[in-house]
Amino acid sequence: MHVVVPFAVESPKTRLEPALDPDERAAFARAMLDDVLTAIRATGIEPTVLATAPIDVDAPVTIDDRPLTEAVNGVLSAGEREASDAIAVVMADLALATPDALERLFTTDCEVAIVPGRGGGTNALVSRHPDFRVDYHGASYRDHRRIADEIGADVRTVDSFRLSTDVDEPDDLVEVFLHGNRRSREFLEEAGFGLTTSRGRVTLGRKR
Amino acid sequence: MHVVVPFAVESPKTRLEPALDPDERAAFARAMLDDVLTAIRATGIEPTVLATAPIDVDAPVTIDDRPLTEAVNGVLSAGEREASDAIAVVMADLALATPDALERLFTTDCEVAIVPGRGGGTNALVSRHPDFRVDYHGASYRDHRRIADEIGADVRTVDSFRLSTDVDEPDDLVEVFLHGNRRSREFLEEAGFGLTTSRGRVTLGRKR
Repeated sequence: MHVVVPFAVESPKTRLEPALDPDERAAFARAMLDDVLTAIRATGIEPTVLATAPIDVDAPVTIDDRPLTEAVNGVLSAGEREASDAIAVVMADLALATPDALERLFTTDCEVAIVPGRGGGTNALVSRHPDFRVDYHGASYRDHRRIADEIGADVRTVDSFRLSTDVDEPDDLVEVFLHGNRRSREFLEEAGFGLTTSRGRVTLGRKR
Repeated sequence: MHVVVPFAVESPKTRLEPALDPDERAAFARAMLDDVLTAIRATGIEPTVLATAPIDVDAPVTIDDRPLTEAVNGVLSAGEREASDAIAVVMADLALATPDALERLFTTDCEVAIVPGRGGGTNALVSRHPDFRVDYHGASYRDHRRIADEIGADVRTVDSFRLSTDVDEPDDLVEVFLHGNRRSREFLEEAGFGLTTSRGRVTLGRKR
């Protein structure tokens, strides 16, 4: 299986703006990427980073400065790959990803496996069908199911809280703090975040 | 296994106030309860509703008007039960619950299995240890792990997006619309909700 982790090098994670300044957002995005790569490697697979620009990271890097959908479709349609090759696309902000959760995704036996993100996105997928293509705009989870149906691929949804939790907005940070992997969690601790309880749900506040 | 579904009969789901009026919140809470009961039944287990007041529902009902923690601990400590009996507590607002996801929880082989909710809560659990007790205040997921550790119970977390998604706030409604079960989803459709896309994430808006 070929596992690709797309990563936007320039101004990543802009929707975390209210909680983190630009330098922090860049550092946090890198911490999450490193955690995702570590979790993938623990399943026995060496991931490739699909980056929008050169990046210094401990993994093979493919550079493609096109938007996400086009860059991922470039990988899915690469001429040299065998029709039967499985390709996985795992987002770089899945700070809660564990080897167990990824293993459940990678070992599905369907032609297209999808992990929805919160709010209708697609956080991770596996394609074993040569004609499957992505479209990450809007409610991509629904679109990806539809695209799979249209090409006659059998499609399955993988049910994982860890993989469904992408970290886009300040409210998502509490999940990283509670369940996150090493670097991402350490980043938040070092940045001064801590738990506070209000209105029944725990939220993350900054102590300093 | 004895499966209990706690349900607050009076003014349920108050945090949905910005999106739904009181009558709608009551009807939606009932729709979610019905969906949860249906999903549990499909695993072959007849659930019991642990209600704060009499309620007309197609399931056995135990009435206990104490706060959630005390009422659930009443079930966990009930004198008549065998020490080895497994007890599951499944929240009534898990509108995405499926038989498959519940089966994964019910068939764990540890003494305490916990499904975290978003924001550090506890959405569902199974206890096979006679001394396990709950405390739903604050970050209960952490507290429940600690309580299990303190009594020497082996504890596991079940990784399920469907069971980790409790429906408390307006932002949660989009998940019900995208992935929810029959009655909960139909309720939202009939109430005029529909998908809109903004800022990268899909949200649910009311058309009328």
